[in-house]
Amino acid sequence: MKDFFKVTDIDKVFEYTSFFPAVETEQVVIEKTLGRILAEEITADIDLPGFSRSTMDGYALRASSTFGASEENPAFIHVVGSIAMGETPCLSVGPGEAVRISTGGMLPKGTDSVTMIEHTEVLDEKTIEVYKGIAPGHNVIEKGEDFSKGSVVLNIGQKIRPQETGLLAAFGKEKVKVFTKPVIGIISTGDEVVPLTETPNPGQIRDINTYTLSGQVIEAGGIPFTFGIIKDDYQNLLEKCREALQGCDMVLISGGSSVGTRDFTIEVLSALPDSEIMVHGISISPGKPTILARSGQKQIWGLPGHVVSAMIVFSVVVKPFIEKISGFLPERKNQVTFPARLLRNVSSAQGRTEYIRVRLNEKEGVLWAEPILGKSGLINTMIKADGLIEIGKNVEGLEKGTEVKVFLM
Amino acid sequence: MKDFFKVTDIDKVFEYTSFFPAVETEQVVIEKTLGRILAEEITADIDLPGFSRSTMDGYALRASSTFGASEENPAFIHVVGSIAMGETPCLSVGPGEAVRISTGGMLPKGTDSVTMIEHTEVLDEKTIEVYKGIAPGHNVIEKGEDFSKGSVVLNIGQKIRPQETGLLAAFGKEKVKVFTKPVIGIISTGDEVVPLTETPNPGQIRDINTYTLSGQVIEAGGIPFTFGIIKDDYQNLLEKCREALQGCDMVLISGGSSVGTRDFTIEVLSALPDSEIMVHGISISPGKPTILARSGQKQIWGLPGHVVSAMIVFSVVVKPFIEKISGFLPERKNQVTFPARLLRNVSSAQGRTEYIRVRLNEKEGVLWAEPILGKSGLINTMIKADGLIEIGKNVEGLEKGTEVKVFLM
Repeated sequence: MKDFFKVTDIDKVFEYTSFFPAVETEQVVIEKTLGRILAEEITADIDLPGFSRSTMDGYALRASSTFGASEENPAFIHVVGSIAMGETPCLSVGPGEAVRISTGGMLPKGTDSVTMIEHTEVLDEKTIEVYKGIAPGHNVIEKGEDFSKGSVVLNIGQKIRPQETGLLAAFGKEKVKVFTKPVIGIISTGDEVVPLTETPNPGQIRDINTYTLSGQVIEAGGIPFTFGIIKDDYQNLLEKCREALQGCDMVLISGGSSVGTRDFTIEVLSALPDSEIMVHGISISPGKPTILARSGQKQIWGLPGHVVSAMIVFSVVVKPFIEKISGFLPERKNQVTFPARLLRNVSSAQGRTEYIRVRLNEKEGVLWAEPILGKSGLINTMIKADGLIEIGKNVEGLEKGTEVKVFLM
Repeated sequence: MKDFFKVTDIDKVFEYTSFFPAVETEQVVIEKTLGRILAEEITADIDLPGFSRSTMDGYALRASSTFGASEENPAFIHVVGSIAMGETPCLSVGPGEAVRISTGGMLPKGTDSVTMIEHTEVLDEKTIEVYKGIAPGHNVIEKGEDFSKGSVVLNIGQKIRPQETGLLAAFGKEKVKVFTKPVIGIISTGDEVVPLTETPNPGQIRDINTYTLSGQVIEAGGIPFTFGIIKDDYQNLLEKCREALQGCDMVLISGGSSVGTRDFTIEVLSALPDSEIMVHGISISPGKPTILARSGQKQIWGLPGHVVSAMIVFSVVVKPFIEKISGFLPERKNQVTFPARLLRNVSSAQGRTEYIRVRLNEKEGVLWAEPILGKSGLINTMIKADGLIEIGKNVEGLEKGTEVKVFLM
């Protein structure tokens, strides 16, 4: 079997991520921060909380007033008042004294802990019995316990989840600096491809990749910009690429898996200003014919035409590049993969990293990954699939029952 | 310890999902379908593909013309033409004949398979040698192999991922019927709570729950509609609830974990038209004081005020209710949880289902879930956390190394 092009190992491909700079930044209001990548460090400009708060309904007091208290030998405590929510209490509490406090209330001077209402009994308007001794700090969130003033609370490159928006709110950040969402141009090629609005004649198929790739771009945190279908014509494709590079941060060209159109795509990419073909073939399956080129500091990807191959290459190879230019610094990459057991044997050719579509099934508490085999031109296999597993390039196959890592698609 | 309210088991709580109907449906263009829930069944109105396609560059022929071919004994084949992409070939191919075809090309009459170009040698302009025998169907996607005309391709209730948008494109669906996104009203309560634009005085804290819950609503596929902060005033809260029920499909009220304000929230909910308190306390931790009420066929949730408790109750309890009214029929629930090993022992009280925040760490190929302990008023614990694990109500605790299921947050 002849080798039509020199393939690059996938790990080597990822080394090119460092070449491409992050996009610009912008200010967005807090309501628009979900899923965005933080472009400024957030430090605590106040203690959070700004005062010691009760976490329970009960009585704020000195823990020492309860030492040794039990059901048999309760402590008698004098109730000197109650705390209004949201206000700074002006009273002061001495030994053997307490004030009524609700969850979230501010502890008054002289108190260090809160005894739960369930551990007390009211004797009269001014006296309670406490049945349990507590330690200082009990049922209290101390001033600055969540975050102390001056500490770094969020870092540049973090993705903002609901809890991070809450933290921004806690520190009064109406606006924050985030990275802009990279705009990803999408071009479909192929003389046999027609728009979805047309009924394909025999020999023709509707454009699918524009839609699958747009969806994947959105999920990866980018903004898809679609350029429609370009017929296999050098001048047309060159002009469309130039146009796309003007307005986009990255360009994806799908189609052209045949040797002829691949050569032709390479010619077009080579003709772009300040261009370089970085990768011409990757040792993965599916996805071997993938091309990575640059024009200046922007990437152009030549993706396979088969829908499944294009989706897998996007997910496995392109997405980390989008994350890189998005400013995302994933702290914990394992968030996206998780273990399951292989339901059937799968074979794999050595010398290439293979990606197998799998469907997840839970049986008796065990998560099984069922391989979905099928040609990479069949979208039904992606509809059935929940994710992918990777088989390393030095592995000939995996036996049923092997623990595999699944990443969702 | 007194029981202030009768708690409901979490499984019992989920039985109430069946009470609440799904929202309306709407037509959306294909570009806007990502993440939406399908409200119509999609059937194949054409075969996909509509013709037999080559999956390789090579020669289309009858497999029988290659039977017995090998390196030592190649088959000599007469090349009678080539197939243009996107066109219906008018030529017909006989035994011992072949046509040049590219990936994606339509097989002409008389052919049933494609031999890869790598398994051939060109002898002259009109003759090739084939070095390998192939079977009928080799390197071909048959007409209707992906989906045959008339078959159901997507069901009502399915969530649309990138691959499903591709499938809609393949069948020319410019618009599809999906469920509308449910509008979820969010009300923060508490006399101690101030808007993020204000600098809190001692005793006050900024509103966090509005932002964390809004983010969680968006992630759950809903549209948050925020009503700001309502002071602990019966009339005010009642009016705001009425207003929220007008425009929203569900209402979340956060705050009021103290007994006093909880009683007061119950009073307000009971005063709403056609109302019923369905759940007043759930046997979970955190989140015990959670309230579920209805007014007509709409839900109102009373969530705990502590930020962590509110987030966990949303994620564990409220989200399945949002999915229900969104029309979502999750086929494979296990997609959202995955196994990891517990990094440390954790204890748990029997009689309630406990949710523990965990951070994920991969060490030597094993995914570990590290419990993050801390008060439920501390948002920093949610920032550190990647997800939650559940400890069943009849379990006293879990030992280090136990396999646990993690759901991401």
